[in-house]
Formats: sequence, structure tokens, C-alpha cells
Amino acid sequence: MNTQSIVERIREIIDDETLVQLKEELNSYHEADLADIFQELKPEERLQCFKLLDLEKAADLMEYLTPQIQVELLGDIDEEMASKILTKLPHDAAADVLGDMEEDESETYLDKLPHKFSEEVRELLTYNEDTAGGIMNPVVLTVNSDMSVQDVLNHIRIKAEEDNMELYYVYVVDKQNHLLGVVSLRKLLTSPITQKVEDIMISDIVKLHVDDYSDFITDEFMKYQYNALPVVDLYNRLKGMITWDDVHDLFEEETTEEIYQSSGISTEVVDEDEILSGNIINAIRARTPWLFITLLGEFIAVNVAHHFDHTFSLLPVVATFMPLLAGLGGNIGTQSITLMVRGLSTGQVTLSSALHYILRESCIGASIGLLFGFLVMLVTWGWQHNVGLGCVVGLAMAINMTMATAIGTFTPFALKAIKVDPAVASGPVIATTIDVVGLAVYFTLVTVYLARVFS
Amino acid sequence: MNTQSIVERIREIIDDETLVQLKEELNSYHEADLADIFQELKPEERLQCFKLLDLEKAADLMEYLTPQIQVELLGDIDEEMASKILTKLPHDAAADVLGDMEEDESETYLDKLPHKFSEEVRELLTYNEDTAGGIMNPVVLTVNSDMSVQDVLNHIRIKAEEDNMELYYVYVVDKQNHLLGVVSLRKLLTSPITQKVEDIMISDIVKLHVDDYSDFITDEFMKYQYNALPVVDLYNRLKGMITWDDVHDLFEEETTEEIYQSSGISTEVVDEDEILSGNIINAIRARTPWLFITLLGEFIAVNVAHHFDHTFSLLPVVATFMPLLAGLGGNIGTQSITLMVRGLSTGQVTLSSALHYILRESCIGASIGLLFGFLVMLVTWGWQHNVGLGCVVGLAMAINMTMATAIGTFTPFALKAIKVDPAVASGPVIATTIDVVGLAVYFTLVTVYLARVFS
Repeated sequence: MNTQSIVERIREIIDDETLVQLKEELNSYHEADLADIFQELKPEERLQCFKLLDLEKAADLMEYLTPQIQVELLGDIDEEMASKILTKLPHDAAADVLGDMEEDESETYLDKLPHKFSEEVRELLTYNEDTAGGIMNPVVLTVNSDMSVQDVLNHIRIKAEEDNMELYYVYVVDKQNHLLGVVSLRKLLTSPITQKVEDIMISDIVKLHVDDYSDFITDEFMKYQYNALPVVDLYNRLKGMITWDDVHDLFEEETTEEIYQSSGISTEVVDEDEILSGNIINAIRARTPWLFITLLGEFIAVNVAHHFDHTFSLLPVVATFMPLLAGLGGNIGTQSITLMVRGLSTGQVTLSSALHYILRESCIGASIGLLFGFLVMLVTWGWQHNVGLGCVVGLAMAINMTMATAIGTFTPFALKAIKVDPAVASGPVIATTIDVVGLAVYFTLVTVYLARVFS
Repeated sequence: MNTQSIVERIREIIDDETLVQLKEELNSYHEADLADIFQELKPEERLQCFKLLDLEKAADLMEYLTPQIQVELLGDIDEEMASKILTKLPHDAAADVLGDMEEDESETYLDKLPHKFSEEVRELLTYNEDTAGGIMNPVVLTVNSDMSVQDVLNHIRIKAEEDNMELYYVYVVDKQNHLLGVVSLRKLLTSPITQKVEDIMISDIVKLHVDDYSDFITDEFMKYQYNALPVVDLYNRLKGMITWDDVHDLFEEETTEEIYQSSGISTEVVDEDEILSGNIINAIRARTPWLFITLLGEFIAVNVAHHFDHTFSLLPVVATFMPLLAGLGGNIGTQSITLMVRGLSTGQVTLSSALHYILRESCIGASIGLLFGFLVMLVTWGWQHNVGLGCVVGLAMAINMTMATAIGTFTPFALKAIKVDPAVASGPVIATTIDVVGLAVYFTLVTVYLARVFS
């Protein structure tokens, strides 16, 4: 599907004012495709198109739109219509939309919604939106342990139809709603219809707690690979369930955070959505801390270099190699950091294998360092007709790259060991350390060399 | 669950040689937990533990292990046992394991497997492992369009039981196995049992083609949020299905590739698994290209700096600020690159909004640049007692940071527009460009300043 060409066709139909055709065209798309189209439209076009959608289609579409566009559209259509759409949404989706609105605005809508629905949504809104309670859908199909398979199938026929619920597993609870077990639809459909649920249910259940945070939730889903997990409270009472499609969104958010952190964009103080498109002040707040640490570190580097001022007057070309050394040391060090931080995050790398990886990376650093050092030596020699200087720069390059990989590998493990998140802290600390140490090595070599030449 | 302490307990039990206890302990864990434990064990401990697992448990565990450990374990146990385990795996998992072995080794196993199973696995092995054909499970529950809901339920009861198949949707096909529609289990369970399948099936189906590549597959899953998609061949004949748990693995791989590429680790020539733990030569091959481009770029920077050699003899402290300028310019530029590359990858940023983002980022760069420039000016002034030099360095910093954000934002869009993957090419090109341009600006300012001072 080429979104751009569809958007252009829709614009033409809007211009022609053949609304019947537009209505038909829009309602024929899958809601996921519509979401892509809406993303590209201008706000006024978006509103015009949204008003032409059937109620069901509009509600389905809501779940695929970004929070900004959801709030924008609901705010622009009349409140009656907005309430109708909200009621058609699953509870967790409705709570997400209302949670993104200003409080007085969401209250207006909540008052207009059917009482039972609004009560359940209000309860969801009391949970932190980054915890299982804020993410879960409270509408879950539950059965009692003494029901037969046939009873359960009849129960599903009635309940699943009326409540528009997602159905992957049937949860078995006692009279106080304590979670006892789980039965998959597959098991249900392949068991004799007279069998008791308690005989086919699994009782060693992987479950989430309402207060579990989103990173824990995605880890559990990735690890156990179920497509839904139940959510319980402190007393093991079933409060809702989280399905894999909720987790996909979380997973994408976490990936974004991980990638942002790897280049020093902090997602601690500012929400990750805000950085790309929100208030510019927030974007600056997210980006400054890392740069500030770099600034401090580079002042140390400046100070180190300053001790060799006399060298620069003696042999100015020495100074010109500083960006070369810093650049390559920084880059190869960043590669090592990235590999370790990512490996620790996926579990492919563990603390107990730290030594193995430090040796491996240092070995890689030394190999590439010797290669690049040799190249730099040749170029410098040929360019400056000074084999001694070539050797100094080449040797500095080799040592610099080896040290950069060793530091870049060691630091994430050290941070992990003292329970600091390596993803957040590694980058700036390591990059400036490599700069400072690299320059110190270089200038020491230069000084030794000059002492021999001029002695 | 604390894997480390469980591993230690298991080691103690191994030392005590109370194998009955070890067997009981191991079989009591969830296979996902066992996989974490196995990851931590030494190869000989792993083999000893694996031999104690029940056949079912061993087969379930296989799906959670890394390819290296799968191949290691199957190679070390006797072939009879290995064949039994392979037969218990879903077809796609068996094909994955066999695909990771040497060809003569996998042939030995294939010859030992039941004929029908080995034929189906052989077919899977003919597809490229990064395409839908290589990822899909060929065992799919199909029904004909004229069956009633009751017929289908009976059919499921027999087929799903005997074939150990994953069950999310029932696919409707004609006699030549052409895909006609899809019915969810939920729909099936809530429809009247006399209704015909063709009346409740959805015929506008989102489907994959056997030759679709993994990045397209993850995009489709993320977009449409189904938990399984059917895979068809050129003639719309149903060949298999891909489920969300297959996609989770793909998704994690893609995230790793995206993160690797952002720090210049190439995943084009070397498989992403190989870089962290494979042959050291491969790791060097993956890391050198980016560093090499940096090397070339930095030689240009050296050359630029070399033109100002006389400045270094005149005022050596000028040289000491080079790492400071290069470091901060590089860092803020990297932040902009990361934001744009990630945004383009998730679809949050589109080519048509390029101008908006270039202006926004330049504005952020200018704000941070002015702030940092002012700080650097103050520090330099205080340190060198030279307000003129302070202004030059501060101004260079501000211009450098602004330009770095502009270049870092512009380049990913430009690459995208000429259909080059911005994730692969942005990093090295931009970083060195920023270095070169930054130094040129700085030295120009210094030269102008010195000309005024010494004139």
C-alpha cells in the first residue's frame, strides 16, 4: 500500500466535494491502513474524514492512532459522538485516550459514559499508566473450577459475545475471584465436553501484579512467549489481563528509549514521546545532561592538552592529530559499549562472563588498532617525511583503540555490578574517559619522542 | 526468579551426585526459566542436566534455547534421543535447529525422522531463512467454506489434538488449498452452531507471501496487530502461518541490528549473532568499515587543522580546544541523527515533514549551543584571562553545535530521499562532516581574531 498516493487521491476527492464517494472509499480501508493515512492528512482534512467514518470503523481506528491525534479528533467532534466512540473501545484503550486528556475534559466524557463502563475506566485511571494496572484490560472471561468443558463453552458463547472481550485463555477463579488456574481455548476445544475445568487447567501460572512496571512486563512476555498474561492484586485476586498487542506497543516504546539512551538522550526526566515532537524546552532538558557531562570531561581533556602547549610551539603538527585520535578512539569505544549494553539488556551477555568479553573486545581493539595504527604511521610518514612522528602517532592510535575497547567493555559491567543502569550512564562517562586517557597517552609518547630527538 | 542462585544450587546438587533430586528439580521448572538456567551453566553441566529432562520438557526447552546451545546439546546426546526430540518440535522450530547444523549432520537427522515430518521440514529448509517461507509453520488448521460451525468444532477436536498445532484462527480454503477467508476462534465460539463458515469468515485477509522478508513481516504484525498471519504462495495457495511469538524473536533481532547500526557496527556482511560471540575475524569485519570511513574523514580534519599550524606556534592554547569542540559537536549531532533515524523507522517522522524537523532541531541546537558557548566563553576567559579568545571559542562552540544538529537532521532525510537506508549510512558520514566543518569554522574565527590582535 502506498500511503502517499492514497492521501493524494483522498485530497482530490475532498476537493471535488463528492462526499458519498469519500465516505465509501474511507470505510473500505483496514483501520490500520486508515491510521497511516490519517497520520499524513492535515488536521482539518483529518476531521472531515473522521466524521464520514461509520461508528464501528471510527472506534476500531482509534486504537491505531497516536495519542495526540486521538485527543485532537475527539476534541473536535461533538461530545455525543465522542462518548459513543469511547463506549465502543476496550476499557484499556478508553482509559488510555481519557488519560491523555486534561482532567476536566476527561471528567466531562466520563460523566456522559454508561455508569458501569465509566466506573471501570475510572478504576483503571487510578493506576500508574506505566504499570500492569494501567495497561491491563479489566474485562476477562472467568469460570469456576467445578464447571465442565461444556458449561464453559456455553458461558463463552454468552459472555464473549456481549462484552466484546479478547479471548485467548479462560481464567479459573474461586468465588472471591482469586486466580486458581488457566485453560487455553485450544485445550478447551480438544478436551471431552464432560471433563471438569479443574482437571484440565494449568495451576502453575505465570502472572503479573498490578504494580509491575512495563519493562518487567515486556521481559516476562519475551521470556515466556504467552500471548496474554493475567494481572492480580496483592491478594491474588484477578484484576485484568494484558495481551501481546499491548506489549508490542510497550516494546516499541522501550526500544525507542534504549536507542535514545545510547546516544545520550535522557528518557528519565522527559517522556519519550515529548522529545521528538513536544515542547522544545523538554527536548532541550532531555538532551543537555549528557552534553554537560561531556563538556566537563572535555575540559579535563583541554587541561591535559594544555600541559603540552610548549610541544605545540615546538612541533605544531602534533596538535593536528588530536581529532584523529579522539575520533577513532571514541568510535571503537562506542561500538564496544553498544555491544555490551545491548547484550546485557537481551540477556545474551551476563555479568559472570565479563572477563571473557573484556578479553575478547580488547583483542578485537588491539587487532583493529594495530591495523589502523600501521596505516596512520604510513600516511604520517609519507606526509611529514618523519618516520619517528609516524611511529608515535601510529603507536598512540593502536594503544588508544585497544584501551577504548577495554574501557568500553569494562564500564557497562562495572555499572551493572553496582546496580546502575549501564544504558543510561555508560555513554558520556566512557566517551570522555577515552578522550582524556587517549590524549594523555599520545602526549606522553610525543614528549618521550621529542626528548630523544632534541637531546 | 534469581537465576544465579538457582544455578549455584544446581551445581551443589551435581557435586553431591544426588541425581534423583536433580532430575526432579530440573523438571519442575518452566521451560523458559530452564533456558535461563542452561544459559548460565557450563557445557558439560548443561549436557548432564539436559539428559535428565523428560522428553516433553526437553522438546519444550529447545524452543527457548539459543541456536548455539541447541546444536551443541543435540550433537552431544545420542542420535536416537535427538531424533525423538526433533519430532516433538513444531516444524518451524525443527527446521531452525536443523538449519543451524552443518549440512551432512542435518541430513543424518532428517533420514532418521518419520518420513512425512522430514519431508515437510525439508521443504521449509528450501526457503531463505529470513523470508516468510523460512519462518512459517506449515501445519495450519484448514476447513472448507461449506462446513458448519459444528463441523468445524468437531474437526478442531480431532485435528488440533493429533497435530500439536498452534490455534488462533481457522483458515478457510477451497479444494485446491487456495485461501478464501479466516475465522477467529472467538467468532467460532460465539456463532450459532448451524451457521455456515462462509457466512462468518472474513474474506479481506491480511496475508504474507512466502518470499516476504523479515522486516516486512514485523512491520505488518506491528501495523495490523494480529497474533497470526497466513502465508501464501504466488497462486494464493496456503503454505503456512506465522505467529506473534516468531515475530517477537524477529523483532528483537531487528532492534539489535538497529542499535548496532547506530554505532556503526555493520550487520550487512556479518550476521548479527556472530558479532558478539562468533569468530573474531567476523567481528572485526563488521566493525572496520565505519571506522575506516571515520579514518578517512579525520584525515581531512587533520588536513584542515594543518593549514593552521602557524597559529599553533603563535598561540598554542588554540589547539587545546579542538577536542572540546569536536566532542560536543559530535555528540549533539549524534542525538539528532538518532532521533531522525528512529523516527523514520517507526513512522513517527515522515519525509514530508523534513523541513519542520530540520528547523526544530536547528533551533534546539542553537539554544543549547548558545548556552554552552556562553559557559565555554566564561571558563576560557577566566582561565586564560583573555576575553577575546573566550569569545572566539564560545562563538565557535555555538555555531558548531547549531550546524551539527542541522547536518545531523538533514542527512537522514536526504539519504532516505535517495533510497539509501539512513540507519546504515548516517553515522560515519555525518560525524566526520561535523568534525571537519566544525574545525574549519573554529580556525576561521581564530584567524580573523589573530589578524585583528596582531594587526
